[in-house]
Amino acid sequence: MAIITLTTDFGLKDWFVGSMKGVILGIAPSARLIDISHEIPPGDIHAGAFALAAAARFFPPGTVHVAVVDPGVGSSRAGVVVQAGASQFAGPDNGVLSLAASQAGPLKAVYRLENPRWFLPEVSQTFHGRDVFAPVAAHLSNGVPAIEMGSKLADYQRLAMPTPERTNTGWTGTVVYIDRFGNAITNLSNQLPIFEQPASVRVRAGRSSEPLPLSAAYSAAPKGGPLAILGSCGLLEIAVNGGRASDALGLAVGDPVVIEGGAKP
Amino acid sequence: MAIITLTTDFGLKDWFVGSMKGVILGIAPSARLIDISHEIPPGDIHAGAFALAAAARFFPPGTVHVAVVDPGVGSSRAGVVVQAGASQFAGPDNGVLSLAASQAGPLKAVYRLENPRWFLPEVSQTFHGRDVFAPVAAHLSNGVPAIEMGSKLADYQRLAMPTPERTNTGWTGTVVYIDRFGNAITNLSNQLPIFEQPASVRVRAGRSSEPLPLSAAYSAAPKGGPLAILGSCGLLEIAVNGGRASDALGLAVGDPVVIEGGAKP
Amino acid sequence: MAIITLTTDFGLKDWFVGSMKGVILGIAPSARLIDISHEIPPGDIHAGAFALAAAARFFPPGTVHVAVVDPGVGSSRAGVVVQAGASQFAGPDNGVLSLAASQAGPLKAVYRLENPRWFLPEVSQTFHGRDVFAPVAAHLSNGVPAIEMGSKLADYQRLAMPTPERTNTGWTGTVVYIDRFGNAITNLSNQLPIFEQPASVRVRAGRSSEPLPLSAAYSAAPKGGPLAILGSCGLLEIAVNGGRASDALGLAVGDPVVIEGGAKP
Repeated sequence: MAIITLTTDFGLKDWFVGSMKGVILGIAPSARLIDISHEIPPGDIHAGAFALAAAARFFPPGTVHVAVVDPGVGSSRAGVVVQAGASQFAGPDNGVLSLAASQAGPLKAVYRLENPRWFLPEVSQTFHGRDVFAPVAAHLSNGVPAIEMGSKLADYQRLAMPTPERTNTGWTGTVVYIDRFGNAITNLSNQLPIFEQPASVRVRAGRSSEPLPLSAAYSAAPKGGPLAILGSCGLLEIAVNGGRASDALGLAVGDPVVIEGGAKP
Repeated sequence: MAIITLTTDFGLKDWFVGSMKGVILGIAPSARLIDISHEIPPGDIHAGAFALAAAARFFPPGTVHVAVVDPGVGSSRAGVVVQAGASQFAGPDNGVLSLAASQAGPLKAVYRLENPRWFLPEVSQTFHGRDVFAPVAAHLSNGVPAIEMGSKLADYQRLAMPTPERTNTGWTGTVVYIDRFGNAITNLSNQLPIFEQPASVRVRAGRSSEPLPLSAAYSAAPKGGPLAILGSCGLLEIAVNGGRASDALGLAVGDPVVIEGGAKP
Repeated sequence: MAIITLTTDFGLKDWFVGSMKGVILGIAPSARLIDISHEIPPGDIHAGAFALAAAARFFPPGTVHVAVVDPGVGSSRAGVVVQAGASQFAGPDNGVLSLAASQAGPLKAVYRLENPRWFLPEVSQTFHGRDVFAPVAAHLSNGVPAIEMGSKLADYQRLAMPTPERTNTGWTGTVVYIDRFGNAITNLSNQLPIFEQPASVRVRAGRSSEPLPLSAAYSAAPKGGPLAILGSCGLLEIAVNGGRASDALGLAVGDPVVIEGGAKP
């Protein structure tokens, strides 16, 4: 049974996601449909890309990932299928697929969605999630080769992500996502050598008056107290035990986070 | 594998929807369960009917649609199964099924849910979604004929929908739904002859000081600017590029929207 | 097809639930995945336990229930599998499983999750839902015996629930849950003998100036008026017809609700 994941900013209040699923099941009746998120903030391509990338690597080979955060729907922006590693990604070519596709393995091919044979008979101006990307994903999961869907492209749109900068004493990173708990996820990878000496690491973030130590569990900080922790995306996160770091420390996407230390004891 | 869709105002915070699914899978273990929406505003039969109708036509023949927006649960209001076109609809007979059932194809039959054999052994006073409509839908998807579930009715409750009115220069329609993006969906069909000359159409809605042109994409308007567009339900919508028309223009369900034009150039 | 239910406080905004499902389908490709709720308030073990218990009894025998409300993730709190009745429950041993497990039937065994063979290869500090409980649930649904996952425990953590107290004229109970509609669910069971004479029962709750009668339907009260009703969990609930009892009467979890009556006419 092929898996199709869905990541959108369509919300769960209306019928948008349900309509996409109806279309898919009409074409691929036994597809497994898994929601990554439909509460991506409207039009926030960056958040959609991050959410898809964070989840996609936990799906088995052969999964088709659909992501529709598509403020340019109806304009000349292309729809694409990206084949990378053992996965296929379908969506608008605006960067929303790029973080997941680039970590999925070697790029195999990119196709521009052009052949209306694989779309719904009528394509609306405003809902390509239902009319283009859902049927395309269903046909892909049925084994239709993407090459039948349109012309080959050299590449797909890559999202510019901030990269950490080296300082004299450590690194300056950036908050790249605020999650449901108010945790501020940074772009500082747990693979940085500085984290090999965790006891020496100090983190400065937001309004925290003191540098934060690196904790091994939320509950290592006092209740309501801030901490830094290597989180489940493999990235440094700023958190508050039992609270919201984004509120308590005034942290938002784009804010700097500074780490120092790494000296051997 | 039979498909059962679910449309309710039960929300996703509590266990209501999960309970319905447990009941269904206990009776129809291989049914495909698809959520249309569970965030219909509490008791808003109109919004539930609109959401179900917008999604239902994208599901394959044989689908069973359950809709439970049921402020009269426990009162004398009937539960029904409506058979129309190639679909079956189960829910309270309060209009929530009517928009979808009336567009699904010719009405075949309506049955009042009376035979407790197809309900849970204990029927609560407050949760017929779980105790009546979920098991009924599961049995329907197993192939139980609806005629075994109760007596035949002549018709089902129809929701009164506003209809557009002709003016000297065009039409006056009504906002019938505000979606997650703040788009105001009207009852003005894209089949009106006026839309055959799209460049001549002007739309007046809410607090917009200028009449809005008809756009072919959200991004055809400047960022933050209002526009009118023929949307994915086949209806005229008022939108704001990258914003919320309902907030920016002060639009709510029931508000008038006036269109003029249609003259050949 | 084995069923796995999911109850968490992970929310639907981010990729957390989708990641868990990807992990499960990689191990148990044909498992049926059913969401109970992912909008449990962050860290609210009590609400998670209540939601799971309210839904679990409607699932067929053999279901595996996963619940992850886990403020102590990464600390020394244990992960467990509880086998009770015909069901298995996996999650942190902090009480979140206890209401559902204790009502599922006789306790068969409890195992502490220790054997990393059944976890993801890398276990993060902050997301055992994905790295421990999802793979464990998938293996359980594949038929792996829980005894292979760790050492046997004598018992699991039980949540302390308030119990109603007898008064001269009836009972004093407690609000234990506020649902999406603002209904205040109490711990007063519909099996109390006092409810055998429903017409004589009077209920005092929150700011209601008058004692409330026991109604058989929300719509038995005037629009906007408060009522008491025996709800779908088998417990007395305080509601407002077409409104929110929690707001209208100022009711919150922990508040007392007093019932009187029960005399034969």
